[in-house]
This record gives sequence, structure tokens and C-alpha cells, in this order.
Amino acid sequence: MNEPLFWDDGASAKLLELISTHHYLVLCDTNTRHHCLPLLQKLCGRIDDKQIICIPAGEENKNMETLHFVWNALFENRMLRNSLLLCVGGGMVCDLGGFAAATWKRGIPFVFIPTSLMAQADAAIGGKTAVNFNGVKNQIGLFQRPEAVCMFHDFLHTLPVRELRSGFAEMLKHGLIANSNYWNSLCHLSKFTDILQHPEWIRQSAIIKSSFTTLDFKEQGDRQLLNFGHTFGHALEAAEEGGLSHGEAVAHGMALAAELSSHKQTLTAEACHEITESIRHFYGENPIRRHAKKIIELMLHDKKRVQNNFNFILLQQIGKAVGPIPVSAEEVKEMLG
Amino acid sequence: MNEPLFWDDGASAKLLELISTHHYLVLCDTNTRHHCLPLLQKLCGRIDDKQIICIPAGEENKNMETLHFVWNALFENRMLRNSLLLCVGGGMVCDLGGFAAATWKRGIPFVFIPTSLMAQADAAIGGKTAVNFNGVKNQIGLFQRPEAVCMFHDFLHTLPVRELRSGFAEMLKHGLIANSNYWNSLCHLSKFTDILQHPEWIRQSAIIKSSFTTLDFKEQGDRQLLNFGHTFGHALEAAEEGGLSHGEAVAHGMALAAELSSHKQTLTAEACHEITESIRHFYGENPIRRHAKKIIELMLHDKKRVQNNFNFILLQQIGKAVGPIPVSAEEVKEMLG
Repeated sequence: MNEPLFWDDGASAKLLELISTHHYLVLCDTNTRHHCLPLLQKLCGRIDDKQIICIPAGEENKNMETLHFVWNALFENRMLRNSLLLCVGGGMVCDLGGFAAATWKRGIPFVFIPTSLMAQADAAIGGKTAVNFNGVKNQIGLFQRPEAVCMFHDFLHTLPVRELRSGFAEMLKHGLIANSNYWNSLCHLSKFTDILQHPEWIRQSAIIKSSFTTLDFKEQGDRQLLNFGHTFGHALEAAEEGGLSHGEAVAHGMALAAELSSHKQTLTAEACHEITESIRHFYGENPIRRHAKKIIELMLHDKKRVQNNFNFILLQQIGKAVGPIPVSAEEVKEMLG
Repeated sequence: MNEPLFWDDGASAKLLELISTHHYLVLCDTNTRHHCLPLLQKLCGRIDDKQIICIPAGEENKNMETLHFVWNALFENRMLRNSLLLCVGGGMVCDLGGFAAATWKRGIPFVFIPTSLMAQADAAIGGKTAVNFNGVKNQIGLFQRPEAVCMFHDFLHTLPVRELRSGFAEMLKHGLIANSNYWNSLCHLSKFTDILQHPEWIRQSAIIKSSFTTLDFKEQGDRQLLNFGHTFGHALEAAEEGGLSHGEAVAHGMALAAELSSHKQTLTAEACHEITESIRHFYGENPIRRHAKKIIELMLHDKKRVQNNFNFILLQQIGKAVGPIPVSAEEVKEMLG
């Protein structure tokens, strides 16, 4: 059973149904309050200021302090077990808001209204919720599905270019691990911002994500394939200390994971070359050479690590991933040269 | 699917199996470290000090600060997704430790080793985890089953008399809502401390609890019957500000709920009299007269409240509960006289 996905008119209808039958609060951040709440007000009618919780935008605020602030707001608004929390924002608002709702009185229903490309194409699908702890991403969290995910294409037109570049990386990933035709379509865009002309491809990304998370909700099987590029990606993101967005780091991480696949002989050199060149086209030079040593240490803290090996998702061909496959730290060092 | 329950020799065997196959940490409190860890060491072999997390005992420490302390210990010990947390203690340690484990890296396995009568007969069964928030009980929590519940009768001999009295109340409750023969057996004890001579009755209490929580894990149906006596009980406990243990408050709450059942004509006056007299025998005079006014306001914060009515579990006869049944604040005031 997966969470129901709704787009545009369908999303409006679903939202209206939900808010007319529930006591609800809206959680947004300082960006989405400004850019997205007006559209939501148009759809849902006037939302009283008392029904809005606003948290500071930014991944650095996906922490315990913000979580306490949201729990406090749920407390002060006497949210009951059948009250509804609407999370309006990117991955940060959905991750943190979903976790706050899923743990309030042992779980109240929540709805995701993702506003970033990253969230609509990937992050808001699949019921992962989390907050960062001690500076480590997503250390505290849960698997808990929202009541619904309601997506509006219009939100995407207000996004900065860099956010589109970040979200586009997860779309490329969905092509690489599951659908070579989809990968080809995306790669033939001359620039990634053209993705806004293809709402159907954004929907397809959400649907590919949903197909993985439906069959394996708790990430014990095929869902792990979605981590392709993420072991290197998380470490690169940390090494660059804010210089790379999550998606940019994952894009470069996928190029490295393709190289590792070629090194381990699961993928042909030709396919590897096609992947690294396409990623270079959209994302520029890979920053790995600056961080090769630090990367290994950073990867040791990754949630997916089991015992002393790293667990990598590798490619067998474009459109087909395998794993997790244990790879020793030595092999990774050797590959990084 | 319910969590597997093990007692004594079976519990030892299960524990040995689990700790020989997992990286693990032991969570205890300042009481169980002293009274229970020696027995556990005998069963499991030497447990290194580095494998023990100790938190301050007492319901007042079931809070965010202690939760952060435990999360930090999981962080520092690099607990991975397949690491195991053994929670050795009463309801406080199991509730808080279970929540910490269930939210660590989106959930690691945990085992309950309940050491109080309350926990062995009731609280450790059924997968409820929680911490208090803003002084309100169990506002933050989850439904998440432990890998196993391992129970040792020997732990109960070290308990203070008052703890036995508290746990005994939930056993009486299981009789009242589900099994009149069981109720009769318990009521014929001349004093509640004699329960220690009947380990089979303590097991039966856990099994009755398990039968309710297996069929309705998330408390949307029959599991709610377990809240019999708790709406009044929680409010009495708060009103007495530490003067009543949870079980003592629930015992008096059950007497009031029986009176409300009689008032609403779901229960005969004779059965109501039998219940209130038995509870008076074990628990003394009901403290409600001191708090009648305050009680209503305190009940407004109860998690099980829906809209403007209170939801009560009532009795149809000894051994059969019904509900939740909406009762207005006015009716409750009238009944309290």
C-alpha cells in the first residue's frame, strides 16, 4: 500500500476534501509562506493566521530546536489524534513536519504539499521522515506514510535555478536505476531548466519512486537501490560544507558510483562514459579530487553501512541497478586513485 | 502479529540468542542498575560498562532531556540499523528506550526486559512507546513492537510494596474488562502482595493484554477497552501531584468508571458495588471528593478525547467492557455529585 499521489486539479480536490473534514494546521517555512501560501489560500479559502506554523527555512534548521518548536505548536493548538498537519514546503519541511506529526500522540495524520522539484520528484514520496542530530543528517526519524501527497506544478516556477538543478539529479537517478528511456529523455534536454516544460516527466519521477517504496517500505530490499549515488553523495555534500546542494552532490556521487561499477566490472566502460559525460554536461567537473582522503572517513557515518564494508548500489546497465554490494574501504581508495 | 513474550528459562534462552547475534547496548535506570543488572549479568555473561547506558529513575525523568541523553549514547556507540537496544526497567525505561530505538536511524530493534509488576503484567506489552512533553504524559510517542519481551519473576521480589500495589491495579482491570474468573481469583487474595505467590496470574495478565493489542495494534478498536478507568485515573494522578502512583490512580479511576457505568445503566448496581468494595479493600478510600472540580479541566487534555465529549470505556458486566461511549462534561459533573 502506498500513499496516494495527486497533481494539480486532483490535488485541489483532495485537499478540499481533507480540510473540510479535519481540524488542521498548516506548517510552512519562511520561503513557502511567502511564495506558496497565497496559492494555497486561493485553493482552500482563507487560512487563519492561528492555523499557520512557520519555521525558518534551510537544512540547517532541520534540527531538534525546530522540532520542539513544532511539537509546542501542536500542543498549544490542542491537536488531537484525528487532527491533520499540512506540510507545505521542500524536503526539510516535509521531513521534519512528518516526523513531528507521526510522533504526536503516537501519530496524527499528515499531508505533504511539496513545493520544490526535489520534493515533488522524489523526497516527498515514500514516507521517510527525519530530523538531523548532532550535525548528522536524518539520524532521528521514522517510516510513516502521509495521508496524501498533493502536488502543484505552479509552485515550481518560483524556484531558484539551483534548486531545479538539485531536484533534476534525483530524476536522472530514477532513469539510471529503473528506466533507460526515461534517462535518455532527460539527457537530451539542452539545459536542465527545460524540465519545467515537461510536467509529465516530473510526475513519472514520482511514480518510479513510488514503485520502489510501495514494494519495500522499510528499505530492506529493492528500496535500497534508490540510494544509488548517495554513499559518495552524502560524503561529498559534507566535505564541501554547504558548497554543494544535496542533488548536486548526488549527481557527482552517481558519476563516481558508475565509475565504481565499471571498476567492479558490473557496468561496461561505454555506459560509464555516457553517464559521466551527461552528468558533467549538467553539473560540471566532479569535485572528488579535492576530497579523496576525507571522503572515506565521512562515509563511515553513513546509515547504510553494515560492519566494516561500505554497501554500494552499482549499475549493471543504464536502467538497471543492483546491490547493496559490499566494497571494502581499500577498493574505494584504489578506485579514487 | 504480536511481539513474542518469554518468561524465565525461555526468556534466558531468547536473550542469549539475541545478544550473541547483535551488536547491543543495555539501557537501565539508577534502580535497575543496582537491583536487576547483576541477575542479567549472570544470564548473559559479563556486560562491559561501555555497553550500559544508565538514566535517572522516576517518571519525572521520562522527558526530552533524558531522551536526548539516550539518543546521544546511541550516537556515540555508533549504533547501526541492526544494533539492538535492551531496555531493562519499568514502564519509564521501556517507554523512553523503546521510543529512542524506534526513532534512531528510522528504527533499530529493541527488547523489553520489564522489571516492575506494572511493566510485566501490562505496560511492556503492546508496543506503546512514549515520552512526556510540557509536563503532559506520553504526548510524544509511537506504536512500535519490540523484538521480544523477556520477563523474569525474580525481579519482582526486589520491588517496594507500593509498586506491587500499582501493578496489581492493571491486573484487576484485565479481569474487569475481559475475564470475570480472573477478577474473582485476584479479589480473593487477602492482600495484594500475595500476588507474588502466583506467577501464573501475572503471566495471564500479560496474555490478556497481548490479546487486545494483537488484534488492534493502533488503538482504533477493542484496544481502547484497555483504557477502562484511565480517563478518571490520569486526571486523579495529575490532581494528586505525585500523591498517587499510576496504578493507584487507575484503581480509583476504575471505581469511578464503574459508578459511571451504573449511572448510565450499562452495569447493575450490585456489580458496581462489588467492584467499588473490592477496590476499597485493596486501595482505601477514593480521593475523588477532594478534586471533583479540577478533574474535569484535567480530563480535557486526555489524548483519547474527541471533540467536546469525553470518551469513556464502561462496563456491561464484570468481565465485559464496552466503548468508547461519548459522555458530556455535564453528565460527569452530575455523577460526581
